[in-house]
Amino acid sequence: MTGSNSHRLITGFSNPTIKFLRGLRDKKQRRLERRFLAEGLRLLTDAREVGLLPEMLVMATQRDPHPLLDELIAAVAASGGEILEMSGDLLTKVTGKDNPQAVCGVFAEFDTTLGAIDRRTAPIWLVAQALRDPGNLGTMLRTGDAIGAGGLILLDDCADPFSAEAVRASMGAIFTQRVARARWEEFEPWLRQGAGQLVAASLRDAQPYRGAPYQAPCFIMVGNESRGLPEAYELACDLRVTMPMKGRADSLNAAIAGAVLGYEVLAKLDA
Amino acid sequence: MTGSNSHRLITGFSNPTIKFLRGLRDKKQRRLERRFLAEGLRLLTDAREVGLLPEMLVMATQRDPHPLLDELIAAVAASGGEILEMSGDLLTKVTGKDNPQAVCGVFAEFDTTLGAIDRRTAPIWLVAQALRDPGNLGTMLRTGDAIGAGGLILLDDCADPFSAEAVRASMGAIFTQRVARARWEEFEPWLRQGAGQLVAASLRDAQPYRGAPYQAPCFIMVGNESRGLPEAYELACDLRVTMPMKGRADSLNAAIAGAVLGYEVLAKLDA
Repeated sequence: MTGSNSHRLITGFSNPTIKFLRGLRDKKQRRLERRFLAEGLRLLTDAREVGLLPEMLVMATQRDPHPLLDELIAAVAASGGEILEMSGDLLTKVTGKDNPQAVCGVFAEFDTTLGAIDRRTAPIWLVAQALRDPGNLGTMLRTGDAIGAGGLILLDDCADPFSAEAVRASMGAIFTQRVARARWEEFEPWLRQGAGQLVAASLRDAQPYRGAPYQAPCFIMVGNESRGLPEAYELACDLRVTMPMKGRADSLNAAIAGAVLGYEVLAKLDA
Repeated sequence: MTGSNSHRLITGFSNPTIKFLRGLRDKKQRRLERRFLAEGLRLLTDAREVGLLPEMLVMATQRDPHPLLDELIAAVAASGGEILEMSGDLLTKVTGKDNPQAVCGVFAEFDTTLGAIDRRTAPIWLVAQALRDPGNLGTMLRTGDAIGAGGLILLDDCADPFSAEAVRASMGAIFTQRVARARWEEFEPWLRQGAGQLVAASLRDAQPYRGAPYQAPCFIMVGNESRGLPEAYELACDLRVTMPMKGRADSLNAAIAGAVLGYEVLAKLDA
């Protein structure tokens, strides 16, 4: 195993590095540090495969050996990253999970301004407005990866895409999908600067979602979990579509609506 | 307001009713009591609209008046149910939520044996195997309602459909969708006793999910969040279909896969 001698062993709960790592569980602290945590060998391997390495790799001293972990350690060492070891108990304190995976990494946050989005790079983009549930957010990233979307644009006050729950639910897509954060007042002019069809699921003056005239780049927008989209946002759409609702409820879970619509758009654009 | 004088006021944390109510947050206790909690006026109103009333209605003493709440109180009183009032603090202790909705109800669990399922009542049924996330489970119930499914069949060790999180995520569909729990060894013979097409999303010898020959009653099966379906279950399917996966990941969130497939089956059966 490469570089074992250079690993730093951390033993005390009051160590400043532990304090820093624990701080990353808190949204304010994450924003301040502009860093986030990703847990588990699978997620870290996903990141490495797209060329992203953690600045800091944190492992339990007692861990199962794994060739992918060895590769990861070597890559982080070669890139000048820091490698820490600590007891499983201490790692649990860091991740806040009872049964933490034996490895996690600290990553620099990505650029989440709209300016970092190049709409020409993908036929589909997902847009979520005031999405509050980090699990939904991560699931939308994961779905975006599956449908070949370029990324997820978060409008207004959304959950934090760099929270442990969102990162986990993304199943690695946090590293492959672009993420942008913007207010509507900023997003709408940006969208209208170039080609782009804004589509929302709506009950207002809408046409059936199947066979609707979707066009790339297609921006699929879903609204807040309990309030849906503001009327003004729906009215600004180029296309409003409706999905069958056979039961008593009048809406779908936001991530579900985005996925059903996303697969429909993909089928149309691929046809 | 009807029946205000008959409300029982509970003031002490050690009251046995409080102990009973708090116990319903625990899976073992729920199984023992065969009761579950549903929180919020909206959910309770959904239940009432399909003819289901709580055995016990629990309200905060300080609550906003609402005509639907008045109707609910009257209906519970008329059906011989119990009506309790307590402080908001105490209600928080019951629901375990920081900001509880000001009303909740205790319901008797439904019959969740396969025998209670009449497959002729709906063209689509959702089936989940070893689904561990209660939010996913509730979301599947909600999606089932939307696509006109008859219900959700839970195979092997799944999350508890009567947990607060599943009930909440179902957005009322826990009261409109049938729920059954069974082992595979019990489900497969039951399925083969009558008409029924078993369909799974799979990478094995599968055909494209769009335009596949779906037939009612169609049983759409999704697997465990991290392991997917056991091979034997996939091989027992009448139809294996595959969804495009354009990115790096090789699977979708279980509730997402069920929904995308569910809407496709609905479109085919409705055509």
